[in-house]
Amino acid sequence: MTVLVVGSLALDSVQTPFGQVDDVLGGAASYFSLAASTFTDVQLVGVIGADFPEQHLDLLGTRPIDLNGLQRIPNGKTFRWAGRYDYDLNVAHTLDTQLNVFAEFDPQLPDEYRSSEYVYLANILPSLQLNVLSQIRAPKFVGLDSMNFWIGNPDTKKDLTRVIERVTAVFMNDAEIRQYTGTYHLLQAARQILSIGPRVVLIKKGEHGAMAVSREGVFVIAAYPLEEVKDPTGAGDSFAGGVMGHLAETGDISWDGIRRAMAYGSVVASFTVEDFSVRRLVSLTRSELRDRLALLRQVTEFQTDLLPAS
Amino acid sequence: MTVLVVGSLALDSVQTPFGQVDDVLGGAASYFSLAASTFTDVQLVGVIGADFPEQHLDLLGTRPIDLNGLQRIPNGKTFRWAGRYDYDLNVAHTLDTQLNVFAEFDPQLPDEYRSSEYVYLANILPSLQLNVLSQIRAPKFVGLDSMNFWIGNPDTKKDLTRVIERVTAVFMNDAEIRQYTGTYHLLQAARQILSIGPRVVLIKKGEHGAMAVSREGVFVIAAYPLEEVKDPTGAGDSFAGGVMGHLAETGDISWDGIRRAMAYGSVVASFTVEDFSVRRLVSLTRSELRDRLALLRQVTEFQTDLLPAS
Repeated sequence: MTVLVVGSLALDSVQTPFGQVDDVLGGAASYFSLAASTFTDVQLVGVIGADFPEQHLDLLGTRPIDLNGLQRIPNGKTFRWAGRYDYDLNVAHTLDTQLNVFAEFDPQLPDEYRSSEYVYLANILPSLQLNVLSQIRAPKFVGLDSMNFWIGNPDTKKDLTRVIERVTAVFMNDAEIRQYTGTYHLLQAARQILSIGPRVVLIKKGEHGAMAVSREGVFVIAAYPLEEVKDPTGAGDSFAGGVMGHLAETGDISWDGIRRAMAYGSVVASFTVEDFSVRRLVSLTRSELRDRLALLRQVTEFQTDLLPAS
Repeated sequence: MTVLVVGSLALDSVQTPFGQVDDVLGGAASYFSLAASTFTDVQLVGVIGADFPEQHLDLLGTRPIDLNGLQRIPNGKTFRWAGRYDYDLNVAHTLDTQLNVFAEFDPQLPDEYRSSEYVYLANILPSLQLNVLSQIRAPKFVGLDSMNFWIGNPDTKKDLTRVIERVTAVFMNDAEIRQYTGTYHLLQAARQILSIGPRVVLIKKGEHGAMAVSREGVFVIAAYPLEEVKDPTGAGDSFAGGVMGHLAETGDISWDGIRRAMAYGSVVASFTVEDFSVRRLVSLTRSELRDRLALLRQVTEFQTDLLPAS
């Protein structure tokens, strides 16, 4: 099956201790699409301005990513984000945000997208996420992301709760989960969110991996230990792209299927952060994914049955 | 085999959002001994004052912990530590430290301890750790802990390096590893330490588990996801106690043996933090350990072989 994503495309300028790039391809939907496209076909809904470089479109076009849902605003400027990371790569310091055409984004799905079963609502205004959901005929698995900005405002938080009530899986990072629930303890916070409706809460923890909580259990997946991290931008959206892409490819949305998809998500994200922007994702192959997944298993495997009773 | 530990016994006063205790049994050697005693016999070298409650000695005596190496200073007062944790239980805020008899601690090993093969040097002044090492005839596996205070001072750091050159395994937390090496990236920092001499570096990451780096590979062990954490004090020393206790019990110090021991260490630490002080460790049984280890495996296990080639 295909997977549909609605979210931002951006021109990012990023500084890390390991280099600097300007006006490179960024945005949640870009990372998600490229990550998911290693597994299955992607339908991308987003908005760009007249200044969006053709080469970025060409690049997305090298993968099975359908761009019919991409709106181009003739007189508009593309969403721009500038950020800096210090040695603690878990924390992004935003230097500048220019919403530009993204401020007026009103996602309209092409008719052929409305029958999509696998849908990812990347971080945008919650009321727009609701609009998107109402355009989908019979969703089977809907993933959702959000951010501190919407959680901190009572009005947008209320809308966000209405979205959460209707989705299958909430993807948020540990800080967002804590902020939304007002609960520090992650298991308890996740269970609060489950009580609103979702089947599973996927908590992203950066270099520490991710954790899923559902009524069926808890799953912890490590981040692959990398020799080098250049730019953590897009790790979370790549993780979601790997998870949703794998679920859509296999059609197995059981708890075991979700666990397996999260392992792939973690591995995809580990490639993303090895280079700036989406560079590493563009060339990512299935055999690279498989090989690193096997390594991740080696790195986390242990025996359990060797302690005698006394 | 037995395991020998040299380190602090303390009377702790701890506040967390979940309660408060005063003058309870604490100190690295207490946590380590009780954790290791689930696996094997322990020899404890430390110092206490005249005010150290008999009930704490009785409690240590309920486990296979030999106290012949415990010095009691008739006119002295026991080391006291007071600390507070806020909701972020990863960070201890020290409110008060009274070294008391610990300030003059000069560990002398009873003769029967000098043939110990498994030795843990808990966090004390590095020059004292060196003294202890020189008293051991033929160590097989020596673990070492330290702290920011010794790393930050050039003189004690120099001594610490002399200890590191001689031990098998360095147990430090992520912040200490980064501080000691001046390297943010944990894999690179661990490799710097390996180049000085140790066989393995075990990096403690609190609620995020632990990672080991050796010439044979990298191993990541999750922390068991708990429903409730009351007091994180002693988690690191309990982890080390589980690791060293299991290694001493099995005698298997291969890379696979170390990995397995770390899984037990992680599980032991997960029990420690469920209650204040050493309360939970005192009643810990081998069947509880085995059961939770099996759960930890369930929580972290995933399939690897299900992605078709294209």
